[in-house]
Amino acid sequence: MGTITFLTDFGVKDPYVGVMKGVILGIDPGARVVDMTHEVEPQDIREAAFLLDDYWRYFPTGTVHVVVVDPTVGSSRRPLIVSAKGHHFVGPDNGVFTLLMDNAPDIHVIENRNFMLSPVSSTFHGRDVFSPAAARLSRGYFPQAFGRRITDPVLLDGIHPVINGRTLNGSVVRFDRFGNAITNIKGRALRSFAAEGPFEIRIGGHSFTSLGRTYCEGDITCLEGSSGYVEFGVFKGDFKWETGTDKGEPVTVTLP
Amino acid sequence: MGTITFLTDFGVKDPYVGVMKGVILGIDPGARVVDMTHEVEPQDIREAAFLLDDYWRYFPTGTVHVVVVDPTVGSSRRPLIVSAKGHHFVGPDNGVFTLLMDNAPDIHVIENRNFMLSPVSSTFHGRDVFSPAAARLSRGYFPQAFGRRITDPVLLDGIHPVINGRTLNGSVVRFDRFGNAITNIKGRALRSFAAEGPFEIRIGGHSFTSLGRTYCEGDITCLEGSSGYVEFGVFKGDFKWETGTDKGEPVTVTLP
Amino acid sequence: MGTITFLTDFGVKDPYVGVMKGVILGIDPGARVVDMTHEVEPQDIREAAFLLDDYWRYFPTGTVHVVVVDPTVGSSRRPLIVSAKGHHFVGPDNGVFTLLMDNAPDIHVIENRNFMLSPVSSTFHGRDVFSPAAARLSRGYFPQAFGRRITDPVLLDGIHPVINGRTLNGSVVRFDRFGNAITNIKGRALRSFAAEGPFEIRIGGHSFTSLGRTYCEGDITCLEGSSGYVEFGVFKGDFKWETGTDKGEPVTVTLP
Repeated sequence: MGTITFLTDFGVKDPYVGVMKGVILGIDPGARVVDMTHEVEPQDIREAAFLLDDYWRYFPTGTVHVVVVDPTVGSSRRPLIVSAKGHHFVGPDNGVFTLLMDNAPDIHVIENRNFMLSPVSSTFHGRDVFSPAAARLSRGYFPQAFGRRITDPVLLDGIHPVINGRTLNGSVVRFDRFGNAITNIKGRALRSFAAEGPFEIRIGGHSFTSLGRTYCEGDITCLEGSSGYVEFGVFKGDFKWETGTDKGEPVTVTLP
Repeated sequence: MGTITFLTDFGVKDPYVGVMKGVILGIDPGARVVDMTHEVEPQDIREAAFLLDDYWRYFPTGTVHVVVVDPTVGSSRRPLIVSAKGHHFVGPDNGVFTLLMDNAPDIHVIENRNFMLSPVSSTFHGRDVFSPAAARLSRGYFPQAFGRRITDPVLLDGIHPVINGRTLNGSVVRFDRFGNAITNIKGRALRSFAAEGPFEIRIGGHSFTSLGRTYCEGDITCLEGSSGYVEFGVFKGDFKWETGTDKGEPVTVTLP
Repeated sequence: MGTITFLTDFGVKDPYVGVMKGVILGIDPGARVVDMTHEVEPQDIREAAFLLDDYWRYFPTGTVHVVVVDPTVGSSRRPLIVSAKGHHFVGPDNGVFTLLMDNAPDIHVIENRNFMLSPVSSTFHGRDVFSPAAARLSRGYFPQAFGRRITDPVLLDGIHPVINGRTLNGSVVRFDRFGNAITNIKGRALRSFAAEGPFEIRIGGHSFTSLGRTYCEGDITCLEGSSGYVEFGVFKGDFKWETGTDKGEPVTVTLP
């Protein structure tokens, strides 16, 4: 019984996600679909890239991860299968798989029309292209059956924090539902940068010299979240709302 | 392993949908339930009827589709099983199945008390009547085991667009999460009405003489959506909010 | 094929719930997870306790029910397995299982590190502790394999209504998505208190002398909801919003 995960910006008001499941069950009746979230901010490829990085490792080898955050659907952007560490990833070639590139993935274009619904709409490749591909991968089809191998996927800029002398420059990449601000700085990377020594981390007018453990500990807190990234929050409050922070807000780590 | 879909106006805050799944798994442990949406506007039977029409064809033959948008639960309205094209549909006799009638369905009333939970509540037939029926249909029970055949289901008025001389009169039937306005006019019907020739389509003060392909193409756009219906949207915007359009808004297609 | 239910305050914007499912499928590939709701008001243990009581009986024996409403995660609060009536319940020892205590449950602490992810984070025991335990229970592991038996679980105060002479004192414990106010007074308990005779039930300035059957019957209505508790609502309206009622609002039943 294969597992297929879904990450989209479709929301849960419309039946799009259910339709994708119908297509999958028609091809692989034993597939099991797990919804990661359908509340990616519409068309925010960067948020999707970071979310994907947060969860795929927790699934068994052989899982197929579908990502449909696809603002250029209907254009000539390529549909892709990215294969790494025994997982397959299916979605548009728009940068959403950037964070997988450290895993030396094999990448194939989905070109084989026999493996798509017919006709292919110009607005819903999640249904017509990605779901049929995911269901076949779940059944054991090889990625090379879908199309040619490529080595030039679209990659997002500015994904990783940058070291500039004694400063590590990162940013806020998303907010969780409680308004906590999640950065692109791994706790591990921070400790490595600071050589386990003292550091100062800053966001807006706030400054911290250590990472707390939970949100029970103070007013505004900086901690290493459950996904390993540094995040900022307010105990029983909403950091985003209370501080007016937006996505992209710079976060700096400096050494004394 | 049978598939059962759910369409309700229950939302996802309350455990009602989960309770229905518990009842189903108690009767058919192999059933797999797919949530279409639980965000139908409360008690909007017309919206549910159109949503249902959008998705059921994408599921394998043998799927059981449960619809619980049921403002008159507890009254004498009949619980129904509608069977068409190898699919079963389970829900209240309030018009929600109107768009299925073109498929010459067999319709049975759910009357057999042995196939309901006991006692039957007056407020939650999704749990007490519809889920037990769906699970048994999924296991292979025949519709006639549930009750008598009927031929007079409740039907909604004004479902299909109406041709009046050189004008096709339709309306907005729902909005998707992005605020796109979805009409009851199929792109196919529009092209057939215009005999593949020129036409003008109007909503509010807006007028279009062709259907665009995607929402990338302009400011306000009119296109044939992924479900085949004509819809209106704003690129990276919200048509409903920006134009103040409501459900029921007239949409007309006129020939030159 | 085991069934595992989830009740959390995680919402559906973040991938936390999906990650828990990934962990479960890695341990028990045949498990089926049913989402009850992830919209418990953040950190509202009392609401979670009442919601749990509403649904677990509708699932087959052997179901494992996971509850993650866990404001003190990362502190020394104990992770528990509560076993009653052939069901297992997994979650924090913070009172969320109070309403199960009438069923004389066996309670064990989850202490066995071999049955947790490693390392255990301080913010996400749903992933690291509760999901691995639930998946193993679903596969048939015995609760005593996880840790020692205890008899002193944390219990919430004021869960049950209190009889004071000719008055039964209850309160509003939660609101459903339609704004109906759900109390902690069972319809059965009310009838028993009134000895099937006349009574007056009051909330705010409103008074009722009988329980209606459905929300079709009047303006403000008092009825026994589908879960057996007395609730207040407004036909096609929102009781919470229209009356300004909050959680904890007193509800009294008095005898003439």
